[in-house]
Amino acid sequence: MTTICCAPILEERLSPDDAVDLAQRFKALSDPARLRLLSLIASCGEVCACELVDTVGVSQPTVSHHLKVLHDAGLLHRERRGKWVHYRIAPGAFEALRAVLA
Amino acid sequence: MTTICCAPILEERLSPDDAVDLAQRFKALSDPARLRLLSLIASCGEVCACELVDTVGVSQPTVSHHLKVLHDAGLLHRERRGKWVHYRIAPGAFEALRAVLA
Repeated sequence: MTTICCAPILEERLSPDDAVDLAQRFKALSDPARLRLLSLIASCGEVCACELVDTVGVSQPTVSHHLKVLHDAGLLHRERRGKWVHYRIAPGAFEALRAVLA
Repeated sequence: MTTICCAPILEERLSPDDAVDLAQRFKALSDPARLRLLSLIASCGEVCACELVDTVGVSQPTVSHHLKVLHDAGLLHRERRGKWVHYRIAPGAFEALRAVLA
């Protein structure tokens, strides 16, 4: 392995496992419609999925897919009430992402 | 369009153009090797590309590809000195990304 400029500092570099975890969450954020859905949900605090259809110019099945991706990435909390699922930003969802961008 | 819970607040939601721009930058971050390269460069302040080969378990051409993706996304500044290119984090690279995660 090549000796790098500042070896002591690099002891603190991102571990391979953390990098895989963070990359998966950044991937969930790498779609414009998903970012706009997140922005809507963050603005409202909590949103019924029924209110998100037609908001970002994509079909209901596509909205559902995007919400599932965001939920699976740990960025959204969801709760079913009767017919509809309600979404809000998962507690601490962005802390690790903000930390790695600091 | 469905009326949503908190219409006034939604005036501040992410614009479609901003969402496209941010999604492209998050896409650049959606790869574990790229995150580890960024972390190395951020730790060192500035790194010669020659020092990054063999650091994250990928080949030299793959390192070069990842560095290009990060540069094209506006996340890395690069400067050629003789044979080698030196990289550092682009000024303000993460401000908009941190803001959208706030």
